[in-house]
Amino acid sequence: MKTQYYTSSSLDGFLATEDDSLDWLFALGDISQTSYPAFIKDVGAIAMGSATYEWILRHAQEVSDQTGSPWPYTQPTWVFTSRKLPVIPGAKVSFANGDVTALHHEMQAAAAGRNIWVMGGGDLAGQFHDAGLLDEIIVQIGSVTLGRGKPLFPRRVLSPDLALVSVTQVGTGFAELTYSVSRNGR
Amino acid sequence: MKTQYYTSSSLDGFLATEDDSLDWLFALGDISQTSYPAFIKDVGAIAMGSATYEWILRHAQEVSDQTGSPWPYTQPTWVFTSRKLPVIPGAKVSFANGDVTALHHEMQAAAAGRNIWVMGGGDLAGQFHDAGLLDEIIVQIGSVTLGRGKPLFPRRVLSPDLALVSVTQVGTGFAELTYSVSRNGR
Repeated sequence: MKTQYYTSSSLDGFLATEDDSLDWLFALGDISQTSYPAFIKDVGAIAMGSATYEWILRHAQEVSDQTGSPWPYTQPTWVFTSRKLPVIPGAKVSFANGDVTALHHEMQAAAAGRNIWVMGGGDLAGQFHDAGLLDEIIVQIGSVTLGRGKPLFPRRVLSPDLALVSVTQVGTGFAELTYSVSRNGR
Repeated sequence: MKTQYYTSSSLDGFLATEDDSLDWLFALGDISQTSYPAFIKDVGAIAMGSATYEWILRHAQEVSDQTGSPWPYTQPTWVFTSRKLPVIPGAKVSFANGDVTALHHEMQAAAAGRNIWVMGGGDLAGQFHDAGLLDEIIVQIGSVTLGRGKPLFPRRVLSPDLALVSVTQVGTGFAELTYSVSRNGR
């Protein structure tokens, strides 16, 4: 069972534009050609920040067009937020606040041997790393530069605590990079 | 003859720390294992910004240890700066100021059919792109995150103007990504 930060990013390290647009992303390729279908099969629980969740809320139609459902996840999901947010019908969502370590225990139990997906944003992934809970970072680097935007991973992690495991090209639109993260290196 | 922005970067899109340190970089691997030896053979002229040049001045010993010389380039080099900077003995350096287009003509003549290497920083590479002069971006993504620092490429270039050509893994320390840049996309 691994805790994985799996995300897309621009070449210059941004998850989204400053106003949380992902329009640049969907032009890049077909998600079914990437590692995503194999990845999601092994996911047993999901963690996401409020900006990620609210993006899904605001883009219900777009998500539905891309995936067939406004909430395409069957896994129990924890949304890290200090605010009250609406629940998408049919979504197995819990709202969580505070330290990620206690929640990670709860997520591990729910995942029942499968992996935990930290969907983002970057600071939430950083909090899992700060707590020594992150095992892998998998980035689909899109063939764009954004110049500014929401940071991929606002932390300093140096060699050898981050180690490149594999690289894969997906057409002209994506390079998939998989890194192992040393839990001791936090 | 191509104009290439060839550089290393952190996974999160920084060329260097905020105080221009590259200490994180040299721990990552042996440059002779990367595409660099093949790349530099085809370079006929070099462009760099003043921060890059001053880094080489300040790190003469380190550069010498890594490459055998405090100025390891035989190619004529243009340093873009508005200030008067010292010349490294033996270096074929010209100081340039202003628009990159006129200088690019001069560099093309000097390169005599070989490629032009835009070494950095990110904004100088951006100026070449703004002028429609950039053909390729080649990034050696090191297995580190810096959290903040000098930006890789402070421009917005979307699909299909940037297209991934190839990806190569170099040990656990580097992923080399090569992109073609559409000159029409500026």
